[in-house]
Amino acid sequence: MDFLTLDEVKKLSVEEASDYCNFLRRHIVDTVMVTGGHLSSNLGVAEISTACVRVFDVPNDLIIYDVGHQSYIHKLLTERYLDSDNLRAFGKYSGFTKRDESIYDPFGAGHSSTALSAAVGFAKASKLKGENKTAVAIIGDGAFCTGMTFEAINNIDSDDKIVIILNDNEMSISKNVGRMSNYLVKIRSGKKYLNFKSKTKRFVSKIPIIGSALYRFASALKDALKRLVVKNTFFEELGIDYIGPADGNDLETVERLLYEAKKRTKPVLIHLCTQKGRGFEDAEKHPDRYHSVSPKTSESNEGKTFSEYFGEIVVNEAVNNKSVIAVTAAMCDGTGLNGFKAAYPDRFFDVGICEEHAVTFCSAMNAEGLVPYFAVYSTFFQRCYDQLVHDCALQNLKIIFALDRAGFSSHDGPTHHGVFDVALLMSVPHITVYSPATLDEMKYSFDMAKDCNTAVAVRYPKGCESADLKDIFKVSDLSLDEYKTSDVLFITYGKITSEVILAKKCLEALGTSCTVLKLLKIKPIDFETVEAVINKISPKGIFVVEEGIRSSGLGEHIFANLSSGVNKAEIYAIDNTFIPHGNLSQLYDFAGISANKITQRVISWMKKA
Amino acid sequence: MDFLTLDEVKKLSVEEASDYCNFLRRHIVDTVMVTGGHLSSNLGVAEISTACVRVFDVPNDLIIYDVGHQSYIHKLLTERYLDSDNLRAFGKYSGFTKRDESIYDPFGAGHSSTALSAAVGFAKASKLKGENKTAVAIIGDGAFCTGMTFEAINNIDSDDKIVIILNDNEMSISKNVGRMSNYLVKIRSGKKYLNFKSKTKRFVSKIPIIGSALYRFASALKDALKRLVVKNTFFEELGIDYIGPADGNDLETVERLLYEAKKRTKPVLIHLCTQKGRGFEDAEKHPDRYHSVSPKTSESNEGKTFSEYFGEIVVNEAVNNKSVIAVTAAMCDGTGLNGFKAAYPDRFFDVGICEEHAVTFCSAMNAEGLVPYFAVYSTFFQRCYDQLVHDCALQNLKIIFALDRAGFSSHDGPTHHGVFDVALLMSVPHITVYSPATLDEMKYSFDMAKDCNTAVAVRYPKGCESADLKDIFKVSDLSLDEYKTSDVLFITYGKITSEVILAKKCLEALGTSCTVLKLLKIKPIDFETVEAVINKISPKGIFVVEEGIRSSGLGEHIFANLSSGVNKAEIYAIDNTFIPHGNLSQLYDFAGISANKITQRVISWMKKA
Repeated sequence: MDFLTLDEVKKLSVEEASDYCNFLRRHIVDTVMVTGGHLSSNLGVAEISTACVRVFDVPNDLIIYDVGHQSYIHKLLTERYLDSDNLRAFGKYSGFTKRDESIYDPFGAGHSSTALSAAVGFAKASKLKGENKTAVAIIGDGAFCTGMTFEAINNIDSDDKIVIILNDNEMSISKNVGRMSNYLVKIRSGKKYLNFKSKTKRFVSKIPIIGSALYRFASALKDALKRLVVKNTFFEELGIDYIGPADGNDLETVERLLYEAKKRTKPVLIHLCTQKGRGFEDAEKHPDRYHSVSPKTSESNEGKTFSEYFGEIVVNEAVNNKSVIAVTAAMCDGTGLNGFKAAYPDRFFDVGICEEHAVTFCSAMNAEGLVPYFAVYSTFFQRCYDQLVHDCALQNLKIIFALDRAGFSSHDGPTHHGVFDVALLMSVPHITVYSPATLDEMKYSFDMAKDCNTAVAVRYPKGCESADLKDIFKVSDLSLDEYKTSDVLFITYGKITSEVILAKKCLEALGTSCTVLKLLKIKPIDFETVEAVINKISPKGIFVVEEGIRSSGLGEHIFANLSSGVNKAEIYAIDNTFIPHGNLSQLYDFAGISANKITQRVISWMKKA
Repeated sequence: MDFLTLDEVKKLSVEEASDYCNFLRRHIVDTVMVTGGHLSSNLGVAEISTACVRVFDVPNDLIIYDVGHQSYIHKLLTERYLDSDNLRAFGKYSGFTKRDESIYDPFGAGHSSTALSAAVGFAKASKLKGENKTAVAIIGDGAFCTGMTFEAINNIDSDDKIVIILNDNEMSISKNVGRMSNYLVKIRSGKKYLNFKSKTKRFVSKIPIIGSALYRFASALKDALKRLVVKNTFFEELGIDYIGPADGNDLETVERLLYEAKKRTKPVLIHLCTQKGRGFEDAEKHPDRYHSVSPKTSESNEGKTFSEYFGEIVVNEAVNNKSVIAVTAAMCDGTGLNGFKAAYPDRFFDVGICEEHAVTFCSAMNAEGLVPYFAVYSTFFQRCYDQLVHDCALQNLKIIFALDRAGFSSHDGPTHHGVFDVALLMSVPHITVYSPATLDEMKYSFDMAKDCNTAVAVRYPKGCESADLKDIFKVSDLSLDEYKTSDVLFITYGKITSEVILAKKCLEALGTSCTVLKLLKIKPIDFETVEAVINKISPKGIFVVEEGIRSSGLGEHIFANLSSGVNKAEIYAIDNTFIPHGNLSQLYDFAGISANKITQRVISWMKKA
């Protein structure tokens, strides 16, 4: 079998299209096992993606994938022929939906729960402009149980042309949690009520008095029966038509329901149950293991990851201190909390994809004397800035934030790079921030965090430690690679320190002596010691290198707070732009902070100076 | 009548307590008409507040007010005797709940929708610690319809001791919106079903065949009937007991229901309908007008406010460009959008207290070619940072943010000061930011925003313009008060410029010449021009003054980006702390940025330099 154009796909019979789904599925397995990326969810959604482009008038109608990690089949259908060379490769196809990439991606994503908000925007825009577009939001059951999706549902008007496809695979990333999730389970298992329905009809028609009296009396009762039967009251109470649950891996069924939804003049929710990992035996059995697959050529997949080590650290804390609790926003596995969950189920809290709630929840926990560790990816932490300020810091409450994936998240790309957290954290009064680059530094940071009487954030990179740094720097709030007079003083923090060390080697080979000051504690910075160091080193120029946004970042903070007499030179950081996806060295290069780029930039500065 | 102690309140009969409510209500009216503050909601909640401290075992049980603006009666009951001298006065009682203030405020607030998240945290902490506390969250119908509240509901377990009091006054700040709100209306008007309920019972018992056959057959049907009758399926589907709706201004009823809720072992929601503005005729008639009252001695209540002028500007834009739409998160009146709403109801969108959704919604609107203006208070903007980054800026979409209440919000205090937005905005790639201090500057900013091809934020202060600045500065991206060689160069932006001008006068009187460079466009800053200015002025020291957080703020950005040769001196801004409530001059003084403090600090610096 070979790839088809979108037009060709539209012309297939249902049977042919169904076969084509299987073909695409196999192709995705082959591709993702090489490139890495999201697997299970893409296999599950194949029929939904195919039905959408066949039933709806794309790109006029707008198909919006929530998170966008399950859009691989959609990309293949819309003539973006992903393969092991181009998927998630620098300059090539993103692993998420992306407006730049195709007219068939009306709204990009990466973070959860934005699809329905966008769909509401599209639907109302279409109405205003007198167009007749349908906005279709495809949302997993995890994202469906979040505040933002609820806010969007709440904002739907009865004449908005919106089709919500609830892609229910009974898990978001790990096992789903919460009341809404339980409710979906009830609906799924409620299929038995459909039998009950016909039984009721037969029963009612057999009883003469009821046949007249009951029906005369209660049209409302009929409603109640209907509700009871289909168990969809939640949605219907909110004024949204509910269709389902149905088998989302049966193309014919999916297309029939989409046609049905398309005809209606009201917003419709179609509840489709799909099998995560479908068509790939291993993934069917262990969908969580195959949620996200690492590329074969992964940069740092040897040894213990920071996430794993965090998991160990917090378990050890929990042994010694029964006030310790651990909180995650649907990232138990990703943040390394599986062990904690198993050891201390009562003290483990997965709040779902709800970072906002998580932080306020933790604040209250701390108000009662508990010690909450909230493990969250740096990029998702962007969601709870207000709660950190308003509920935690302002009330002098203490949460220990374990900020995972700080810095570039390589092939995941701009939606996932953890490059804003430092700028955000710097602005928060009282908070203490550490940025370890090795496991020992991480341990030190969490040890310090324990005794700190403020909120603390420990931000650490994706993957494994930078082993090269272990012998170079002492584990302390700040440390130097060596203590000598130099032409150049680098100040840096986190994983990028490895590039700085390489740059130093190049520069020294070229005759420019360098010293590297590595910060572990980045807020507050001990400026007195830093200035003492500077005076000893007496460099011609000081260069701050950071794997983060420049404006409002640490470099600006440092340069603004060093005395006027000091020879500040340049800040090398992400300058007013977004960094694409690619491997780490490509991204470092793109951002101008690879060893090579640093070297060139310093040389060029030295020439001018 | 005189104030009572909490113990005395507990011992009152229901009738006496009811009278006491009325006494407190009158006291609140008298007080707030002088001090300013929230009025209508406090009048409505009197019986609920009174019942809570009488029924529950405070402070062991935890009474949490959402937003906290309706806690005045609670404060009076817990022996914080608010009066016209101490309410919202510097160093005295806050207008919101506050942990520092009383053991009866277990969780402070100011922003919406945090109470239930906190209650869930408290309830689970209590369980973990083997205590038996009840967490009571009092939430208005506006906050109830938000994502964060939904996230918290979703996170409640069936053995969490939580009582949710839905204080339903049929409006949050302005008229409520959205599906959930409609649903509450349905419930309220569903009281007629209660009659229907007893009718059903009579009917069923009269029919012999039903009496046996129907009941034998359908316990489920009974359920359905019950659901139909009380119309509470939404909550019960989510596993939360529902009681109500009932009259929340009838103390006896409220206490009876609270006792009932206290007995249950499940989470309970009590739906109480209250009358906003109750007991104060004017406020009963115009509850929105009395939502928030300005103090009698308001600082700048003469002339047109920035909010009003923004309303005019956006209406004018809408006349000329039918793509213009206006969006608010439940702040139509506060942000000056009433006129727009009246003139262009189809192009006006109140999404409820849902800033997160609002920004993603606006992004999609712009993707369809519309021009969304999102008017939001600076402090609430903190809620949608991630959406600005992920949905708007990353996708090169354009939203025009009208950030109201930028800078201190005087008597509202730390939860409402708009002092973090600059730090946040500086970190966002591509966005353009203006910070006007006069109405003409505001007009200019929005004019520039129109033609800008990036997202734009125009941040402006609460209240009226600084008239003194109108004749001093030309309206342009940056301007000088005069162009001369000076000892001191001030760089500043926004309302605080008035203090800087005063400081300059003091300093010049003391023989230190000063020039003031006022920035209107604060991102990106035209550093080339700034440096040219500096070279002309050739000051001994440059002082940046800002009404915002220092770390990650504009001062650091400026100092870090001026060339090394320039004589940078000091940044006067909010330094790693939260600023309390009080009048503007008290707050400026507290933050060290009043004219006096600036003068003293500069003098002291000059001495050292």
